[in-house]
Amino acid sequence: MRPSGRNLSDMRPISIETGVMAHAEGSCLIRCGNTHVLCSASVEETAPRWLKGSGQGWVTAEYGMLPRATNTRNRREAASGKQSGRTQEIQRLIGRSLRAGVDRRAMGERQITIDCDVIQADGGTRCASITGGWVALKLAVDKLLKAGVLTSDPIVDHVAAVSCGIYAGQNVLDLDYAEDSEAGTDGNFVMTGAGRLIEVQMSAEGATFSRTEMDGLLDLAEAGVAQLVAAQKAAIG
Amino acid sequence: MRPSGRNLSDMRPISIETGVMAHAEGSCLIRCGNTHVLCSASVEETAPRWLKGSGQGWVTAEYGMLPRATNTRNRREAASGKQSGRTQEIQRLIGRSLRAGVDRRAMGERQITIDCDVIQADGGTRCASITGGWVALKLAVDKLLKAGVLTSDPIVDHVAAVSCGIYAGQNVLDLDYAEDSEAGTDGNFVMTGAGRLIEVQMSAEGATFSRTEMDGLLDLAEAGVAQLVAAQKAAIG
Amino acid sequence: MRPSGRNLSDMRPISIETGVMAHAEGSCLIRCGNTHVLCSASVEETAPRWLKGSGQGWVTAEYGMLPRATNTRNRREAASGKQSGRTQEIQRLIGRSLRAGVDRRAMGERQITIDCDVIQADGGTRCASITGGWVALKLAVDKLLKAGVLTSDPIVDHVAAVSCGIYAGQNVLDLDYAEDSEAGTDGNFVMTGAGRLIEVQMSAEGATFSRTEMDGLLDLAEAGVAQLVAAQKAAIG
Amino acid sequence: MRPSGRNLSDMRPISIETGVMAHAEGSCLIRCGNTHVLCSASVEETAPRWLKGSGQGWVTAEYGMLPRATNTRNRREAASGKQSGRTQEIQRLIGRSLRAGVDRRAMGERQITIDCDVIQADGGTRCASITGGWVALKLAVDKLLKAGVLTSDPIVDHVAAVSCGIYAGQNVLDLDYAEDSEAGTDGNFVMTGAGRLIEVQMSAEGATFSRTEMDGLLDLAEAGVAQLVAAQKAAIG
Amino acid sequence: MRPSGRNLSDMRPISIETGVMAHAEGSCLIRCGNTHVLCSASVEETAPRWLKGSGQGWVTAEYGMLPRATNTRNRREAASGKQSGRTQEIQRLIGRSLRAGVDRRAMGERQITIDCDVIQADGGTRCASITGGWVALKLAVDKLLKAGVLTSDPIVDHVAAVSCGIYAGQNVLDLDYAEDSEAGTDGNFVMTGAGRLIEVQMSAEGATFSRTEMDGLLDLAEAGVAQLVAAQKAAIG
Amino acid sequence: MRPSGRNLSDMRPISIETGVMAHAEGSCLIRCGNTHVLCSASVEETAPRWLKGSGQGWVTAEYGMLPRATNTRNRREAASGKQSGRTQEIQRLIGRSLRAGVDRRAMGERQITIDCDVIQADGGTRCASITGGWVALKLAVDKLLKAGVLTSDPIVDHVAAVSCGIYAGQNVLDLDYAEDSEAGTDGNFVMTGAGRLIEVQMSAEGATFSRTEMDGLLDLAEAGVAQLVAAQKAAIG
Repeated sequence: MRPSGRNLSDMRPISIETGVMAHAEGSCLIRCGNTHVLCSASVEETAPRWLKGSGQGWVTAEYGMLPRATNTRNRREAASGKQSGRTQEIQRLIGRSLRAGVDRRAMGERQITIDCDVIQADGGTRCASITGGWVALKLAVDKLLKAGVLTSDPIVDHVAAVSCGIYAGQNVLDLDYAEDSEAGTDGNFVMTGAGRLIEVQMSAEGATFSRTEMDGLLDLAEAGVAQLVAAQKAAIG
Repeated sequence: MRPSGRNLSDMRPISIETGVMAHAEGSCLIRCGNTHVLCSASVEETAPRWLKGSGQGWVTAEYGMLPRATNTRNRREAASGKQSGRTQEIQRLIGRSLRAGVDRRAMGERQITIDCDVIQADGGTRCASITGGWVALKLAVDKLLKAGVLTSDPIVDHVAAVSCGIYAGQNVLDLDYAEDSEAGTDGNFVMTGAGRLIEVQMSAEGATFSRTEMDGLLDLAEAGVAQLVAAQKAAIG
Repeated sequence: MRPSGRNLSDMRPISIETGVMAHAEGSCLIRCGNTHVLCSASVEETAPRWLKGSGQGWVTAEYGMLPRATNTRNRREAASGKQSGRTQEIQRLIGRSLRAGVDRRAMGERQITIDCDVIQADGGTRCASITGGWVALKLAVDKLLKAGVLTSDPIVDHVAAVSCGIYAGQNVLDLDYAEDSEAGTDGNFVMTGAGRLIEVQMSAEGATFSRTEMDGLLDLAEAGVAQLVAAQKAAIG
Repeated sequence: MRPSGRNLSDMRPISIETGVMAHAEGSCLIRCGNTHVLCSASVEETAPRWLKGSGQGWVTAEYGMLPRATNTRNRREAASGKQSGRTQEIQRLIGRSLRAGVDRRAMGERQITIDCDVIQADGGTRCASITGGWVALKLAVDKLLKAGVLTSDPIVDHVAAVSCGIYAGQNVLDLDYAEDSEAGTDGNFVMTGAGRLIEVQMSAEGATFSRTEMDGLLDLAEAGVAQLVAAQKAAIG
Repeated sequence: MRPSGRNLSDMRPISIETGVMAHAEGSCLIRCGNTHVLCSASVEETAPRWLKGSGQGWVTAEYGMLPRATNTRNRREAASGKQSGRTQEIQRLIGRSLRAGVDRRAMGERQITIDCDVIQADGGTRCASITGGWVALKLAVDKLLKAGVLTSDPIVDHVAAVSCGIYAGQNVLDLDYAEDSEAGTDGNFVMTGAGRLIEVQMSAEGATFSRTEMDGLLDLAEAGVAQLVAAQKAAIG
Repeated sequence: MRPSGRNLSDMRPISIETGVMAHAEGSCLIRCGNTHVLCSASVEETAPRWLKGSGQGWVTAEYGMLPRATNTRNRREAASGKQSGRTQEIQRLIGRSLRAGVDRRAMGERQITIDCDVIQADGGTRCASITGGWVALKLAVDKLLKAGVLTSDPIVDHVAAVSCGIYAGQNVLDLDYAEDSEAGTDGNFVMTGAGRLIEVQMSAEGATFSRTEMDGLLDLAEAGVAQLVAAQKAAIG
């Protein structure tokens, strides 16, 4: 029934290749089916101004998409002179989600910027960015720990995200573009390795939804995030 | 226990004054406690370009805040040259939420723009904007029906929104600023008059949350939205 | 003869409601007929950079208009990415006018920003902004005096403004939009409580004017400003 | 008493050199003492959109200043990404003033853009721009008349402008920068060849003014504009 | 003597992987040593406005760099709100160079946009973009030929580019970043498969250069471009 | 054969008038035929941030064109909100070229900004800007030397530039607009007074070129620059 032939609760194949950007403190290329995102972590030895003297660090994120990551070419945001509302919404979500998995006091007054650049898009780019962004963050933190810059690990738990939605009347896991553009309701679910919730974003696009339907999607999401966390574990070895 | 002395499941006083902007097709001033938002609906007799020939209309929203709506003055967005990510995120949410309560085919190829301008802020401005924006929209649609421009009502149901969160370890309804800035988890819930869900946005800010906690907040939200819908009904007579 | 039925030298009803914005150090809602402007004063305990060490303060103003303050909706300046030439011209005029009524040395090195946001427009928004802006400024200064932050009152005199023009061949006072859009010549007159001139801006729009006509308009303006000053006195009690 | 040694009612030397920009339909370099402005008129054979079908034309103006026209270098507006409020205010004034001397119906549906670029500044740049801009406009119109594109002259009268102010307690004509930066009150006066008023802009900068003082400045302005009109006549032969 | 241990006339290893972006009509990932650029070609079935009716097509290019492509993170151009002068200069060069290898009449009235996004930078990104951009362009054109949209091949010849410079007093081929940042003189040379010159850009950075030195660099460039053209041939099979 | 009737190796008449901008430390109006550029040098007693503590100075340049410098009016860059890619490319070239003729250590930690504003354009504006910009720079440096601010002359040699191209199959020197817009290949050549090369920029526009053709253009350029240097010497006396 799904355009891809997957079962309702099937994730797309996940692959996370680390160390793909030579200059970054941490990096990976995450592939969730045909959605491919390059994630890098850049460490800066100063915190944002508003944290001066607080003893706490900051994690922030930026998101972009290559103009031809999609089926028809999008205008380059650098050329149009501003980031779209969608881009800003996504990068705020990524930053917020990753901060929820970090003890900012243990970071010390430094900032880590996660850049998520979509090389190829087939639905779920914000979820892939969170999942891959966490790997880049973890690798950068491990480097700081190894170098003795950090003495205790500020990473509290895994953070990963997956989308679910109601497609053709059925609850499905890990929507690809063909499903996402048709789904009446969909949502993004960000969770920890322990299965706690960080962010739930559900939207009706054309059809409202019930609490029962919401519960069904949450069940799927829990199963999906568990698989993503396993892939993160494998990637960071 | 709450800074305002309210009970855990108490809403702030709601007041909706209609017809406050002489030029607009529909307008209201909504007050949720000390949060005051001016909402207007402007009808344009052409749809956006991408709907030409589709027979469908569009509802969109813009959001702003007077520089001194808040405790310390914020920079005027018109002067800084762009709308913040927060502003864009909010106005996208308002538009999406209101569209979920509208039969866009019954609108015909016209556009209604909802402007929500926060005069005074004390938490929950996006929820007040949705609830008040729906009243402005309804009044504009009624005017078009009365004038015979529309022959069937495109408004399918009420749309209203409320925030809930976990404050000092307790689930509380309708957060004010003092609570919102301290809450470890909070969420915005957009629902229809019939109690169906349109949008759920829950975020951990400092503390992750469980599905049980989420369910508790949803219970509160259902009760809160019911009161808002009653206030909408009273306002539109 | 006037569209509103007013006599040639009649002002529109003036109403000034103070304390309308809970967070601001001073605020009012001024209504000149159907022109309604929200004015707030925000005190900042540092002066602009170029005044550092001068012992002097600064008064500045910003002006905005809600998109649907007018008969047809205007594009939101925050969305278009810049303030129009008209907006900048008006806010420079408001700031300059209010500074003329202030002893900047008595202010000390602090800045007061007057925000004037037009809620509803029917001609004369810049004049209403000056007249209402002065009330917000005065209230903020009184608060600083009461708190002992200021020890002598930097407000030297009232500042108020009115427009006059030649409509259908007659000199008329306090133009509303219907008159303003037809007037061949019009002007804005900013004066002190003592009747001294601060700013005179007269423009021919379609028909040039003589010194005699200019004198006639100044006579009207003096009478109008006196009424505005009386309303300011009543408002600040 | 004046820094330049001029008498109170002395203008600076005026020189208007025409035909200085080979490509423009009309052009001149106007020198009012050490204030030098390059003015050009560009004819476009279409009117702005809002005049389509009206049978009327439009005159508009743009103003700029070379970065080192002044004593210390100013930031180039093209580099800073926007025109300052001052620039916009001035170019709106130039356009409005020149339109007051034109029968827009006799222009037909075309637009003439007057560019005024200050090469060297010593006070009074907006007045020099209006006076020189009129010459460029007149030359462009004459060219259209000679070519038979226009059959009747849309230029109704001369338009010229001068500044006056109260410097060291005295009314002085044609302020240079040394005077302008010290004057407690100053004004710009735009008039026709027949001595009718087009625009009066008087501002108190530090000291308010009386109607008697205003009358004194108007007397000076009338004498000054007469000399400028004579210089325009000589320039256009 | 070279930091990399290469001989003076050694190129870095070249690798061109095609078909790396699923949605693009043509794409490749070019690696010149540690400089990696993703190149895509997007076909649009309309030409730019200024070519309407000319029977000719257009090739244009856009260039970007991921924020962490370099040793320290660069600000994202989409976030800063504009493309730097360097970015614009490079993308104009890429477009101009590729157009020199195309018969724009044979293209018909369509546009092909080449996006070059630097994933990792180690000197020579603009040259790699031209060389890889040509491959993406060629693949897109081949697709149009295969589909019968084009009937004759508009690609006239290969286009490839290499940098050369004077490093530590010696002429060296294909500068990496360590060399580029120290070279007193360097240049970029764009040539055709037949060895004709398209663009020569030589700059003294600290030390001027002679015609003899320039000739030496041209000799190196010819040899380098020949190797790049061979790699292009291998890539497109 | 040339539209202007010049011989293949004829320069246009060169005129350099110095001291044309009263406020600038150095200035000139350079005329190369009908291309006229105003050049000024502004000295700032602080170096850019990245040179703090280095003991070195900086020379930078900005370039602009009056809207009606050309045959049809161009949009004012200050109004459009950004400098075009062409403008940025040109001003980067001017700055780089002039820096090649300066010992930045002998400048001390100060910055000199060269503004080049094209009053009238007929091809070769970037070359005229470099040649005239050098004169403005030299005059400013001489002033600093005379004032004892500088004790040794940081100007190492003359810097001048000329364009050459292949027009109607022939190598021609100093292209005017009529030639430039038709030439299949053209280039800009920046050289020192001693004949050393600073910058070579050659582009094929429609037709590629050979090394032999390039050599022919370099021969012409050397002769042209020698004449420009002679004009510079005459101008600075």
